[in-house]
Amino acid sequence: MRLRNVKDKLDVLNSNHNYVADPSLYKGKWGSVFGNNNPICLEIGSGKLKFITEMAKKYPNINFIGIERSDSVLALGMKSNDTNLDNLRLICYNAALINELFDSEIDTLYLNFSDPWPKSRHFKRRLTYKGFLEKYDLIFKNDCKIVQKTDNQNLFEFSLVSLSMHGYVLEEVNLDLQNSEINDNITTEYEEKFMGHGCKIYRLVAVKRKK
Amino acid sequence: MRLRNVKDKLDVLNSNHNYVADPSLYKGKWGSVFGNNNPICLEIGSGKLKFITEMAKKYPNINFIGIERSDSVLALGMKSNDTNLDNLRLICYNAALINELFDSEIDTLYLNFSDPWPKSRHFKRRLTYKGFLEKYDLIFKNDCKIVQKTDNQNLFEFSLVSLSMHGYVLEEVNLDLQNSEINDNITTEYEEKFMGHGCKIYRLVAVKRKK
Repeated sequence: MRLRNVKDKLDVLNSNHNYVADPSLYKGKWGSVFGNNNPICLEIGSGKLKFITEMAKKYPNINFIGIERSDSVLALGMKSNDTNLDNLRLICYNAALINELFDSEIDTLYLNFSDPWPKSRHFKRRLTYKGFLEKYDLIFKNDCKIVQKTDNQNLFEFSLVSLSMHGYVLEEVNLDLQNSEINDNITTEYEEKFMGHGCKIYRLVAVKRKK
Repeated sequence: MRLRNVKDKLDVLNSNHNYVADPSLYKGKWGSVFGNNNPICLEIGSGKLKFITEMAKKYPNINFIGIERSDSVLALGMKSNDTNLDNLRLICYNAALINELFDSEIDTLYLNFSDPWPKSRHFKRRLTYKGFLEKYDLIFKNDCKIVQKTDNQNLFEFSLVSLSMHGYVLEEVNLDLQNSEINDNITTEYEEKFMGHGCKIYRLVAVKRKK
C-alpha cells in the first residue's frame, strides 16, 4: 500500500506500547517478549492493521506479530485501531530481511493482499516467490504454514504453483471466499473495499511438513 | 454428459475402425495396438470426441486413447468427428475400472469437464478423488501427469487440494484460460459452449514424480 507521508509517524510509532523499534534484538526469543509459550503468528504486510488487531482480540491465547514496511502506513493503522493488546506486537521492516528477525519460532504466516508485482520481470518480488519461501523455511517452529488471501488472479495462480513446487501441500483452496462456507473470515480494510465491488477473493492454506 | 439413447449406437461403434470393443485384452500392451513405442495419452470422459480427435490430428507422433462411459455419447461423437486416425483408439468403459485396461503405459491423463458431482456426499465420485488417483498411479509409465480443465469452481478447488495431498506438484494453474497467454488450447464442445457464455475455464497441470 502506497500512501502519503504521515508527518507525526515517528511520534505515533514510538508512543505505541506494542511497537518494537529494534526487533532484531529478539530473534529466536520472541516468546520472552510475550512472556509465554503460546504460538506466534506473523502477518507480513499488515497495512492498516485491521486484520492483525482483530485476530489478536479474537484469539487471546495466540501471539501476533504484524510487519509493515511503510512507517506511514503503520502509523495510520495505529491511529485507527486499538492496538493495546498483550498478545500483539508491531514492526516496521522489510520482509526480504525476515531472517534478521525470527528463527524457528513462527507457527503460521499470513500474507494478506500482498503487492502482486504484476509485471513478469518483477516476479522475484512477490512474497510467494521461492526466494522468499526459502527464507520463511527458517522462521517456522514446526511445520511451515502459510495462509494467503488476495484479489489478484495472477498472484494467486503464481502462489499455487510456487508453493506446490517448494514442497507445500495445499490443504484448502477457495476461489470465491465471500460466497464460500467459511464464515469466520476476518477481513482486511482492502478486502472489505474490494468485496464491496463484487471482486472475488482467493484464499489458500498451504503446509510443508518438517522433515 | 447425459443424453438420449442413440438407436443405432452399436452399429456405429462396431463399424468404427478405431473402436476397441474389448480393451481389457490389451492391458499392458497398448503399444502393440498402435504398432509403435510413441507416448500414449489418455482422456477419461471423451464426450463427443472433439478434443481427442483434434489432439490426435495435431500430434501424429503421440497415441491417444479416449474413454467414454456412455455408448450413446461415444456413438454421437463418432458421427460428428473424423476418427479415422492411426494414432487414435476409442473405448466405452467405466473409469472406476481403469486398472482393468492399463498398466504402467500412460504418459499423460486428460480430464476435461468431468462431472463435478456437486453434492458433498458424492465427492468420492469426482475423478480427482484420492480413490481415483490411487488407481491412476498404476497406469502411468513414468511420472504421473494429469491435465485438467473445468468450468466448475468447486471441482477445481477440490482437485487442487486432492492432487496436492496425493503428492502431485502443480506445474501450471490457470484461473481464466480464455484470457490467458496459452494460445494452443484445444477446446471441447462443452468448453466452446461455456466460453461463449462468458464462463471462466480453469486449467491445471499436475505432476507426481515416480520414486
